[in-house]
Amino acid sequence: MEKEIKVPLLVFLTDFGTKDGFAGVMKGVALNINPLIQPVDLTHEIESFNILEGALVLKAHYKYFPKGSIFVAVVDPGVGTERKPIAVRTENYYFVAPMNGLLDLVLEEEKPIEVVEIANPKYRLNMVNNTFHGRDIFTPAAAYISKGVPLEELGPKINYQKMLNFPKPHQEENKIIGQILYFDKFGNAITNIPCSKFKKCRWRSLEGKVVENFLSGEKGIPSFICGSFGYIEIFLPMDSFKEKYNPQVGDKVECFLEG
Amino acid sequence: MEKEIKVPLLVFLTDFGTKDGFAGVMKGVALNINPLIQPVDLTHEIESFNILEGALVLKAHYKYFPKGSIFVAVVDPGVGTERKPIAVRTENYYFVAPMNGLLDLVLEEEKPIEVVEIANPKYRLNMVNNTFHGRDIFTPAAAYISKGVPLEELGPKINYQKMLNFPKPHQEENKIIGQILYFDKFGNAITNIPCSKFKKCRWRSLEGKVVENFLSGEKGIPSFICGSFGYIEIFLPMDSFKEKYNPQVGDKVECFLEG
Amino acid sequence: MEKEIKVPLLVFLTDFGTKDGFAGVMKGVALNINPLIQPVDLTHEIESFNILEGALVLKAHYKYFPKGSIFVAVVDPGVGTERKPIAVRTENYYFVAPMNGLLDLVLEEEKPIEVVEIANPKYRLNMVNNTFHGRDIFTPAAAYISKGVPLEELGPKINYQKMLNFPKPHQEENKIIGQILYFDKFGNAITNIPCSKFKKCRWRSLEGKVVENFLSGEKGIPSFICGSFGYIEIFLPMDSFKEKYNPQVGDKVECFLEG
Repeated sequence: MEKEIKVPLLVFLTDFGTKDGFAGVMKGVALNINPLIQPVDLTHEIESFNILEGALVLKAHYKYFPKGSIFVAVVDPGVGTERKPIAVRTENYYFVAPMNGLLDLVLEEEKPIEVVEIANPKYRLNMVNNTFHGRDIFTPAAAYISKGVPLEELGPKINYQKMLNFPKPHQEENKIIGQILYFDKFGNAITNIPCSKFKKCRWRSLEGKVVENFLSGEKGIPSFICGSFGYIEIFLPMDSFKEKYNPQVGDKVECFLEG
Repeated sequence: MEKEIKVPLLVFLTDFGTKDGFAGVMKGVALNINPLIQPVDLTHEIESFNILEGALVLKAHYKYFPKGSIFVAVVDPGVGTERKPIAVRTENYYFVAPMNGLLDLVLEEEKPIEVVEIANPKYRLNMVNNTFHGRDIFTPAAAYISKGVPLEELGPKINYQKMLNFPKPHQEENKIIGQILYFDKFGNAITNIPCSKFKKCRWRSLEGKVVENFLSGEKGIPSFICGSFGYIEIFLPMDSFKEKYNPQVGDKVECFLEG
Repeated sequence: MEKEIKVPLLVFLTDFGTKDGFAGVMKGVALNINPLIQPVDLTHEIESFNILEGALVLKAHYKYFPKGSIFVAVVDPGVGTERKPIAVRTENYYFVAPMNGLLDLVLEEEKPIEVVEIANPKYRLNMVNNTFHGRDIFTPAAAYISKGVPLEELGPKINYQKMLNFPKPHQEENKIIGQILYFDKFGNAITNIPCSKFKKCRWRSLEGKVVENFLSGEKGIPSFICGSFGYIEIFLPMDSFKEKYNPQVGDKVECFLEG
């Protein structure tokens, strides 16, 4: 497609927030290197330092972007330490990130074809500040990739190493035991239970059917639904489950194949 | 205009927030269908489920966008239920939204020329999740419109039905009685009183002139002004009226033709 | 560069927040005047009315944007009063802003070559609301500049006047005495002490080395680092210094040339 060559997308996911200009300046850096890119914000509001949350949100959304999109993912509490900045090519996308677990989930689905450590000083800013590799290393690498610089130019090949201890649900005969991973803006709790075929779930003493839409639940009573992340979610109809019931990340959730 | 064909704007207004990637992923979907669009965020921070607030903010701003812009408006507590997804063509714009009142105010000003229910599965994502029509139905419809797909292709014609009980001010001989609708980021209270020719207003026991600018008011005393939404606003000079005076949506406000 | 002519960047820095559509509508106005611009949000979350904070954030980031970028900076508590709307050309950039101090810091680095008062009604919106010059005056001026309108067309030349009382650090023989200016999203405190060559710092009774990265500090103990704004910052490893220690803007910080 002509467009992918002419207007490559740089898609940003960070924990930088939007108030300090950290998110904005990365677009300045990118457009300075390649004026033809289209920057897109996936989110800059991952909880500070929460790599697992970043991994989860990235995995939920990346596959809706055009093939050839370049993702710049930076949740990087170890910025400036030994953790390696990497660039990854898969069949459909590029990912630039610290190798700290942030890409673990997405690379379970998108097999990495080429992984390099970003090491060549030619493809970073002249001055690198040890507190902001998003601006000085990751965004420049992504922008140069968008200009056609091959990954092998960025640095030596390395093996991708999984870092994240992502909690997996435990499957038994007729049920699955998982946990709450994350709360979205609406106060819905997203679990790690894939929502394929479950009919009924339980959280604490609350038990309910997996319903079809957000209005099917009973007012004031938390209900279960197959959410857009692809996992079972707990929600409170027209209200915030998180605020009203005070659930916690890690809370056990069970789902059953039969109602 | 050549530009409108080449770089159509998709303008987003939702209650999705920006933290979970819901706002970002819609741009991925749109750019995947039509790589030539320019996405613009009007806001993603409408209060969760607050259709009236969404209607008000959309009405305040849409007319500043170029003719031909396509608005994707999604405040949709009934997602996945019977409420209809629609696409509307007016003389100047396109609007894609659930028919739940969100377009009521804007369509008082922009007369709808064509209204269709978005029903043709050809113009949505292959898999539709019942919790996220913003991604799976509304954004694809808007992106296909931007590529020139005529509305009649999207689904059958229907009549637009007003759903919102928008509170109208009550006009008497020399005064008007309205109410507070909304608070902006600065803590200013936006009322439903159009700010044409009023000289003096009252909220609770507070009475004051309609002043010319935000510094004309007396420090510490709430003042009245003709705001950028086109309505009378109550503000506290260099401070937040909302935080300091605890006003509520629905509070009565009166304005007078003579000071 | 061909691109700078074809896709000029309009870079926005405001205290408008993103919830009310104030930030979004400026892009509508800009794209209506010049459909070829690329809007970029630097930030819209400067604290309401905080000109010094806006000046600081703008200065931290502007130089990472491509030459020719046009900055629209609006933190403007005096909107609609006597303060003058100006447009400034420097060797590398354009800046459009109220002359209220917001450009003081950036123009210490980028010498103004041409400064005009934006006065010509031809280059603003037809209707100007006294509460929103960001939409009605500043953005149109920037968009017309991006189309090649020379500054002298916008209004008469004036002299730039500094307005801000930016607190400067006090240098003694072996130490420097400064203060906290600002807190970023991570709760790090940004000071006014340039981070060139200091080895050790002190805040209240806390003293520590200037460390190399965010993980070098001891857990639970605030540490000092050279941050990406170019100033000494105080941080709490993997935590929020602001939340845990309740520091205030204006707090004294001392740094020493020797550890």
